[in-house]
Amino acid sequence: MATRVLIIGGSDAGIAAALRAREVDPRAEVTVVVADAYPNYSICGLPFYLSGEVPDWHALAHRTAADIEAHGVVLLLNHTAQAINLARRDIAVTDQSGQTRALPYDRLVIATGTVPLTPRIRGIDLPGVYVLHSMDDAFAVHAHLAHHAPRTALIIGGGYIGVEMADALTHRGLAVTVVEQAPAVLTTVHHSLGQRVGSELERHGVTVATGVRVEEIVRADRHLGVRGSNGFAAVADLILVVVGVRPHSDLARDAGIALGEREAIRVTRAMETNVEGVYAAGDCVETWDRLLWRPTYRPLGTTAHKQGRIAGENVVGRGGAQFAGSLGTQVVKVFDLAAAGTGLDDEAARTAGFDPKTVEVTVSDHKAYYPGAHDVRIRVTGDRNTDLLLGAQMLGHWQAGVATRIDVFAAALFNGFAVDELNELDLSYTPPLGSPWDPVQIAAQAWSGTS
Amino acid sequence: MATRVLIIGGSDAGIAAALRAREVDPRAEVTVVVADAYPNYSICGLPFYLSGEVPDWHALAHRTAADIEAHGVVLLLNHTAQAINLARRDIAVTDQSGQTRALPYDRLVIATGTVPLTPRIRGIDLPGVYVLHSMDDAFAVHAHLAHHAPRTALIIGGGYIGVEMADALTHRGLAVTVVEQAPAVLTTVHHSLGQRVGSELERHGVTVATGVRVEEIVRADRHLGVRGSNGFAAVADLILVVVGVRPHSDLARDAGIALGEREAIRVTRAMETNVEGVYAAGDCVETWDRLLWRPTYRPLGTTAHKQGRIAGENVVGRGGAQFAGSLGTQVVKVFDLAAAGTGLDDEAARTAGFDPKTVEVTVSDHKAYYPGAHDVRIRVTGDRNTDLLLGAQMLGHWQAGVATRIDVFAAALFNGFAVDELNELDLSYTPPLGSPWDPVQIAAQAWSGTS
Repeated sequence: MATRVLIIGGSDAGIAAALRAREVDPRAEVTVVVADAYPNYSICGLPFYLSGEVPDWHALAHRTAADIEAHGVVLLLNHTAQAINLARRDIAVTDQSGQTRALPYDRLVIATGTVPLTPRIRGIDLPGVYVLHSMDDAFAVHAHLAHHAPRTALIIGGGYIGVEMADALTHRGLAVTVVEQAPAVLTTVHHSLGQRVGSELERHGVTVATGVRVEEIVRADRHLGVRGSNGFAAVADLILVVVGVRPHSDLARDAGIALGEREAIRVTRAMETNVEGVYAAGDCVETWDRLLWRPTYRPLGTTAHKQGRIAGENVVGRGGAQFAGSLGTQVVKVFDLAAAGTGLDDEAARTAGFDPKTVEVTVSDHKAYYPGAHDVRIRVTGDRNTDLLLGAQMLGHWQAGVATRIDVFAAALFNGFAVDELNELDLSYTPPLGSPWDPVQIAAQAWSGTS
Repeated sequence: MATRVLIIGGSDAGIAAALRAREVDPRAEVTVVVADAYPNYSICGLPFYLSGEVPDWHALAHRTAADIEAHGVVLLLNHTAQAINLARRDIAVTDQSGQTRALPYDRLVIATGTVPLTPRIRGIDLPGVYVLHSMDDAFAVHAHLAHHAPRTALIIGGGYIGVEMADALTHRGLAVTVVEQAPAVLTTVHHSLGQRVGSELERHGVTVATGVRVEEIVRADRHLGVRGSNGFAAVADLILVVVGVRPHSDLARDAGIALGEREAIRVTRAMETNVEGVYAAGDCVETWDRLLWRPTYRPLGTTAHKQGRIAGENVVGRGGAQFAGSLGTQVVKVFDLAAAGTGLDDEAARTAGFDPKTVEVTVSDHKAYYPGAHDVRIRVTGDRNTDLLLGAQMLGHWQAGVATRIDVFAAALFNGFAVDELNELDLSYTPPLGSPWDPVQIAAQAWSGTS
């Protein structure tokens, strides 16, 4: 009899698992329970929809529902999973009409993603204040932009979605303020790079308030008034709240499935939970850290795709595929800049018991004699005792190869390189696009104090 | 007593060796014999000097002579090495005045580079016909462009310098013809990619004649007439000959030093010749191939820098540094395109005893919904039996990350990846710059026939 695979969640991990399961076992009956009508949407693309750069939101779909169904996957759109019953091997789902029924399974994949954090701020429920997390959230913000024509926006949270939305709303013509608790925006990179991103925002007219905790939102005339620590006060027509996420693991927890790091679902590297036959993947699960060699929590779309693929392969009982682990590689574009990182920074490395040293260099993205060269800042972190490469961060013009050069560091980290081994890589070179020693290698030489 | 290190050749390998030797042993007396007045010049930059994009040729210096001398390296400019006497441990050098003297050494590095090939063509010595190889060659072409204001140019040889010069002279306003013996230009990549480069040349007004062997150049009025196979006939004001190079190994051979692949100087991976204490590096030596695990001949600037660094470290007797090997990684920009490759193509893999399969995909360089996406063609070659990654080639818009993405393949090849392991790499993603599965990974999935 064909295996009945049930997948809860229709975003990156869930759909990747569904497609992979069908690919590995074409007889498997694969059903995906999708909480909204938008399976496999590129949530990372929401800022570009709201900026107006992507006029039609349908373009954000990695694949259309029809594409997915063409692979033999059954999609239950607008169905919300209410409970998992491990003993009976079924889940309770509610459809749009409010009716609840039980769906049986042989094997289960939980890919429920995240829940947005909502800070304790008085007035956060006022009209005009939006949490931006899902497609429906984006439609709500889009409708507000279209119908109320706000002229000013305030963004609570200077993480990567916050800075992308500052760019997006500026692009749309709004005057934007970003408020961040930390001393600099983009805390995923070193504060000196975060400060540079902050000044890039300011260079494009964005007001950046760091070290400020928002305490209260009040209706003020036809606007919203915001008050925060250090005497911060501002007025805005529209407020976005993007302060982070937590794993959406309630369903699993309530069923008795073990949780781990930061209340994310505990999984093996085969993406199996502590319950046999129940897999989990994506932003709702722990992330195996390839450098620390232990679970962390680090929700990223790239990781969700990879974990979904592993879960999909293993859920139909073939393989024994293992998730190779995350390095936390990421990049964000903010106006003319890209900022990227992979692996550990100094602080994370020290916490993990390494003896880290970080060296920063500024190099041209290509031979400076060829027109259009851009400076790129590269920070390399390695261990003083073993010379092991631990991480790298990079900041420069978005067309200066920052995103793909961080990938060379990521490939080196993946393979456990010593810093100096980067010099052995046979990388490409032509004067308009690089140097005989690639910027990655120049940074490695600076770390080693050699040439 | 301080070690006297003598280095013959002041281009990439020679200067890299000199600087590294001084760095490893600050007491070493390091002297570099430079045949012209231009040590450490970026010969790869000549097309951009001749195009006018680099107005001042001094900018082509990787480092100035003063920079190099500041590291305690003695430069003997305009000195030509005539002979190496291994028994006496000295070399005979001639200075600009024609005087010859002997320079003693304790350790020697030969970094004499290449000699340009000159095809047997009647009339190749006529005025207006230039071989483009050295700084002096570039000055001669530059003077011709400045004083004779040629309106048409013909380039014999459609390799990477040929296509770069076609771009450069078009940029300068000349009408250019490229003549190539092979069925497509840029034989370093698959002919289908070479054909695309050919049509890019044509799109910018260049006449491309492939499958043509030039047989004769004649003076015709105030122009030069060119005749070739298949009835080819053309007229031009200026002719460039760029048909390749051979290792400049005569000096070593005459001294009794063993030669290897394609008459290049035979070296160990420590960059030592068969004579103890005599090292060699750069375009005059064999290249250790990391995939084939044997010597080949593959002159490239990136490799010359690496080999020079190894030779410089070992010549002062420390380390035991070994050249990690070349993958032949390279990239060239031609008008709006970049074409890149690393590792083996189908044919080279088959010759080497593999059972290769090559799959080509066309993918967007970033999420297609974000403005400005470019198609990139990626060809992945792997072994059918072992799934080992053997090589990759890529072609796309020059700002579509072709050069840096080929580097991710190069890093994977360096580490002996199976094709499918590319999917495990934790690469960066943001919609304006990539995809959740990077184009490199989409290509790997196409090779494996999976998703």
